[in-house]
Amino acid sequence: MQPKFTPSEMMEFLNEVFPQVRGDYAIDHLDGETVTMRLFTADHHLRPGGTVSGPSMFALADITAYVATMAPIGKEALAVTTNISMDFMRKPEAGRDLIAKGTLLKLGRALAVTDVLIYSEGTDKPVARASLTYSIPPSR
Amino acid sequence: MQPKFTPSEMMEFLNEVFPQVRGDYAIDHLDGETVTMRLFTADHHLRPGGTVSGPSMFALADITAYVATMAPIGKEALAVTTNISMDFMRKPEAGRDLIAKGTLLKLGRALAVTDVLIYSEGTDKPVARASLTYSIPPSR
Amino acid sequence: MQPKFTPSEMMEFLNEVFPQVRGDYAIDHLDGETVTMRLFTADHHLRPGGTVSGPSMFALADITAYVATMAPIGKEALAVTTNISMDFMRKPEAGRDLIAKGTLLKLGRALAVTDVLIYSEGTDKPVARASLTYSIPPSR
Amino acid sequence: MQPKFTPSEMMEFLNEVFPQVRGDYAIDHLDGETVTMRLFTADHHLRPGGTVSGPSMFALADITAYVATMAPIGKEALAVTTNISMDFMRKPEAGRDLIAKGTLLKLGRALAVTDVLIYSEGTDKPVARASLTYSIPPSR
Repeated sequence: MQPKFTPSEMMEFLNEVFPQVRGDYAIDHLDGETVTMRLFTADHHLRPGGTVSGPSMFALADITAYVATMAPIGKEALAVTTNISMDFMRKPEAGRDLIAKGTLLKLGRALAVTDVLIYSEGTDKPVARASLTYSIPPSR
Repeated sequence: MQPKFTPSEMMEFLNEVFPQVRGDYAIDHLDGETVTMRLFTADHHLRPGGTVSGPSMFALADITAYVATMAPIGKEALAVTTNISMDFMRKPEAGRDLIAKGTLLKLGRALAVTDVLIYSEGTDKPVARASLTYSIPPSR
Repeated sequence: MQPKFTPSEMMEFLNEVFPQVRGDYAIDHLDGETVTMRLFTADHHLRPGGTVSGPSMFALADITAYVATMAPIGKEALAVTTNISMDFMRKPEAGRDLIAKGTLLKLGRALAVTDVLIYSEGTDKPVARASLTYSIPPSR
Repeated sequence: MQPKFTPSEMMEFLNEVFPQVRGDYAIDHLDGETVTMRLFTADHHLRPGGTVSGPSMFALADITAYVATMAPIGKEALAVTTNISMDFMRKPEAGRDLIAKGTLLKLGRALAVTDVLIYSEGTDKPVARASLTYSIPPSR
């Protein structure tokens, strides 16, 4: 599917909708089916020891699935997370950005399902995986 | 099971292990099988509109399961989150603390499973549910 | 909520909708919010060694959540499973029925979420837990 | 990783361990990281209407993850399912085999995580996705 956003339009849209995370993320790639998001790992994402915290990985998975869901439907729609399952498999490496690769597996009228794999930049074994369901309420 | 911590010993332990969330949580109840945690909802937990953010609810579920897991085994052990599944069911009410009720369903030698229900304080319909697996590496 | 089925009306309805499992289940309790289902453990539910198979526990969790969802809305509606997460925590005991306790946590217009705990009859430690989302398509 | 089984050795092993499903499955591909399993869809896998039942898809996901986990470690080991999350996204097409593609995301000493996508043969949109954790108890 053709995305309804360029990466920079999507970033602008995210900054409007989630102003509190402005500056934390970049979109490295975006089409109508897959998305690659980058978390600029900073001190407030870390646990003691330098590893990225669980909530920061959750937030990255969530925003990646949100971008994958909104890309083909456009900004008029609403979408809210209803379900996530997530496996934490390895420790992220200290001092590296996290790279999340999202794949939109289903875009239905009411529900969208996205798979996400998260990597420490430059490594090929995922630190975490997630799958998320977004609910798309009927537009008025 | 008899818990190896009083609530205030557990809070002290949490403040050591997760200094970055100091002041965010209280333990309203703790025994060897159930725990009630409170999130003092503050501005940095909110999304625009005043609702508590997904990552803040994730963090509350995660710390609740951590406390439920550590209570009967004591602070010598290590425990890391390996899996979470979470359903977001209702919008938290603005201006209220979140109350998480955790139940330790299984404490094995290697894995512990905890169920968590999250409520806006003073309401009886859960805003979210989660189940989490903590892995307990063998001690040396 | 008041259920729209008595237990025997619900069993009759299940036998119509899932004729292939006729005789496998009983409803021990049913109200508009909780349900207790019984799996009459038989040879075709077992793995070598006498323990109940994973697919049989999945099927029990699924039908329990279906009953919990349909009880308050009535048989005109459709409901299909969209998501399950399940933890297998202990081995079921050989030669005992399984008892599933379902709690309807949310009944929205489009989605229903049910928690299920499964026990070997007569024991108080759950062998498995599950949470399921049913999608309720809009009626025409 | 080099698998410790050829596909036909693995099928023989499955037939020993799960004699009750003999004849239901084939292994179309197997290496040390990915596996493709085929469910020969038969009457006992179907719901009224001809679609494959939830428990049959669960069983397919479970055996696929089992094969992915055992392939690199060999038959001396034990492995038991501890967690599954599964999304049902589309109705399987009547009269077609199901094809499950499993990817082993992590093989640790104690836990293995596998992602599975399930397709109706000859179609490219998944009917379901699953992720499974297998626990590998320490060998004696």
